Amino acid sequence: MLRLSSTDPGFAEAFARVVSDRRESAVDVAADVAAIIADVRRRGDGALAELTAKFDRHDLDASGWQIDAPACKAAFDALEPTLRDALELAAARIRAYHVAQLPEDRDYTDAAGVRLGATWNAVDAAGLYVPGGRAAYPSSLLMNAIPAKVAGVARLVVVTPTPGGEVNPLVLAAAHLAGVDEVWRVGGAHAVAALAYGTERVAPVDVVTGPGNAWVAEAKRQLYGVVGIDMVAGPSEILVIADARNEPRRIAADLLSQAEHDPTSQSILICDDAGFADAVAEAVEEELRALATQPTARESWAANGVIIDVADFDEAPALANALAAEHVEIATDDPESLMRRIRHAGSVFLGRLTPEAVGDYVAGPNHVLPTGRRARFSSGLSVLDFMKRTSFIQLDQAALEAIGPAAVALADAEGLPAHARSISVRLGQ
Amino acid sequence: MLRLSSTDPGFAEAFARVVSDRRESAVDVAADVAAIIADVRRRGDGALAELTAKFDRHDLDASGWQIDAPACKAAFDALEPTLRDALELAAARIRAYHVAQLPEDRDYTDAAGVRLGATWNAVDAAGLYVPGGRAAYPSSLLMNAIPAKVAGVARLVVVTPTPGGEVNPLVLAAAHLAGVDEVWRVGGAHAVAALAYGTERVAPVDVVTGPGNAWVAEAKRQLYGVVGIDMVAGPSEILVIADARNEPRRIAADLLSQAEHDPTSQSILICDDAGFADAVAEAVEEELRALATQPTARESWAANGVIIDVADFDEAPALANALAAEHVEIATDDPESLMRRIRHAGSVFLGRLTPEAVGDYVAGPNHVLPTGRRARFSSGLSVLDFMKRTSFIQLDQAALEAIGPAAVALADAEGLPAHARSISVRLGQ
Repeated sequence: MLRLSSTDPGFAEAFARVVSDRRESAVDVAADVAAIIADVRRRGDGALAELTAKFDRHDLDASGWQIDAPACKAAFDALEPTLRDALELAAARIRAYHVAQLPEDRDYTDAAGVRLGATWNAVDAAGLYVPGGRAAYPSSLLMNAIPAKVAGVARLVVVTPTPGGEVNPLVLAAAHLAGVDEVWRVGGAHAVAALAYGTERVAPVDVVTGPGNAWVAEAKRQLYGVVGIDMVAGPSEILVIADARNEPRRIAADLLSQAEHDPTSQSILICDDAGFADAVAEAVEEELRALATQPTARESWAANGVIIDVADFDEAPALANALAAEHVEIATDDPESLMRRIRHAGSVFLGRLTPEAVGDYVAGPNHVLPTGRRARFSSGLSVLDFMKRTSFIQLDQAALEAIGPAAVALADAEGLPAHARSISVRLGQ
Repeated sequence: MLRLSSTDPGFAEAFARVVSDRRESAVDVAADVAAIIADVRRRGDGALAELTAKFDRHDLDASGWQIDAPACKAAFDALEPTLRDALELAAARIRAYHVAQLPEDRDYTDAAGVRLGATWNAVDAAGLYVPGGRAAYPSSLLMNAIPAKVAGVARLVVVTPTPGGEVNPLVLAAAHLAGVDEVWRVGGAHAVAALAYGTERVAPVDVVTGPGNAWVAEAKRQLYGVVGIDMVAGPSEILVIADARNEPRRIAADLLSQAEHDPTSQSILICDDAGFADAVAEAVEEELRALATQPTARESWAANGVIIDVADFDEAPALANALAAEHVEIATDDPESLMRRIRHAGSVFLGRLTPEAVGDYVAGPNHVLPTGRRARFSSGLSVLDFMKRTSFIQLDQAALEAIGPAAVALADAEGLPAHARSISVRLGQ
């Protein structure tokens, strides 16, 4: 853990190093992924079967290419009631938040008599990548699938690796609850390629979202433009701004809730009371001792944890904007005034009773958020990632007479005479 | 020009070939571009100066790295009055359409007592690539710069190559009108790299938009994630749905307005009257004879032009949705009913008096639109490309008691005990 104080002479440089440390994998898998994509494009299902046998060690023809709807429903029905209720509460709350996010169409006629507008439509089909093994989170499936269904996507396809043929019943239950239409037992870059280009069995989709390892992320990047994708995701991160009126162990728990994800995760505390910050650091050590995910959380906190002492929280917004963190918790008396000055953040958690983890599961807003300072220019996943806008224009003769000549002048100036002609021929010129 | 009829036995296959023909450059510049990006990252301005001397044949230290605001204003003031008025009308109308597009923040408390919302903010800085030479269109500068300024971008930077040191006064005039803050005389992949990573002179930006050649497009793709980018752009295209009650030369002019852009552009006509379609084809030949851009337009029409005869316009929406064209003109008696069934299109032009070219210049909606069937999943440029959303959540004790236990159950099920702990420690458990 790194301890910085904003009054130290070297603070600006040390903080700049924290900001610029992207903590992202430098593994270059571009060539491997390009070869896999080409292979799937060329050989289709044959490539999928071969790569699945190689990476996941099972035979798709024997274990089944798809997991059918009754299997997903059975997994849901078999859930322990508390867990089923929790999943249903999460799904209902996520759905409600995203329904309220649906964009409105526009249609109006302006002073020049020009009718203008825009219509939103869902994409026809979306593909959702769900990692296998440890990182197969039902909450993540809900956070990706529900916005797609709320947007109106008719065909929602999950691809997920099932290493050794084993499936994750929680993920199947979530797929049932979210209304997923197809579940394919393929993962890796080859699954993304299948979604983008289609194979004999898998029909292509228009958008691919969802988390994945370096191969999956690179496949999405290479296929961007063939399909739409969500933002490139990096290691998770939290910035906690907390004053001395908090309980240290609560703030410690919040920092560790991020650290337990992965050794590359980052937890940062900004505090205006060095004594309280010391207490939090101690509480982190104490909490770590009892934590089942201790090895990961300890590694993350040791390598990437930061405590920044500030003289006044007035300094916090500038630091927060430079970090542009995925999650920002503001546990102070007046969180609102700080939030108003934080322009770059994925999601903000206000007050002492809003631990970030409620946002991961049940609050309603999406937990797929920009990482690695990408909150400077990108947003969390939303219904808009599964929709697109078509603008429209309608002129009558009067409107064309009013604005057409200006278009003719500009087309002529740009050396595009056919553009000018398509207008002037309607002006009787 | 290819003539198809929907009643031909081989129509489905022939139409599928039209749909799958992306007409995009297959030149692989990925390695070249990666080397240029690495060079700019390493050597900064030194690399920019060297690459500009190589590609644009002028010395930045001699000709000046930047074009200053007075020079842009002088170019604007020197415009011929008709052209200046036309640019001002275009800018005012583009501004009005995009102002109406600004998203609203959300802030509400739901039945469980959870406060939820989202705040939109502009990115701090945006970079706009403006091609040099023939394709340096002032209208394109307005269409990129005005949405950025309407979004609230404080620093808007143009990069543009000036081959041989020559600048395009129309582009400078448009930069003045749109309120561009900086104009740098650098182009190519190196200019995009400078925008993304910054150099000694050029401060980095958060989003890069604007058209460019294969090198520029590949640089944007490689830097996606370091900065935000607009959609990858391909050759332009128009689909015209026209009945026999149109004047053939008007429809011909519309088809040619797309064809004159580039030999790779595509113009497609869907018509329910073979005789009228013949008349349009003849009118295209006639119009071509008088056209200053004839060589390009003729090449495009010969190589990529398509006329599709249909028995009934009822067939048109399915064809239009498969093509997912950048521009769709509907020149029929009831364009509205067809538009309602077209889900995938960049922009729709309704009726006999709305040639696509009015949308290129003065209608107001953005002319930067998805090409190459990307309207299936992406939208035209908008203020949203220069903004991002921060969600927020606030719970009080009652709200946490209401939804917290479900989050604890899910965190436990996902094997994330520190997530659960950050909530349970606030529930007094």
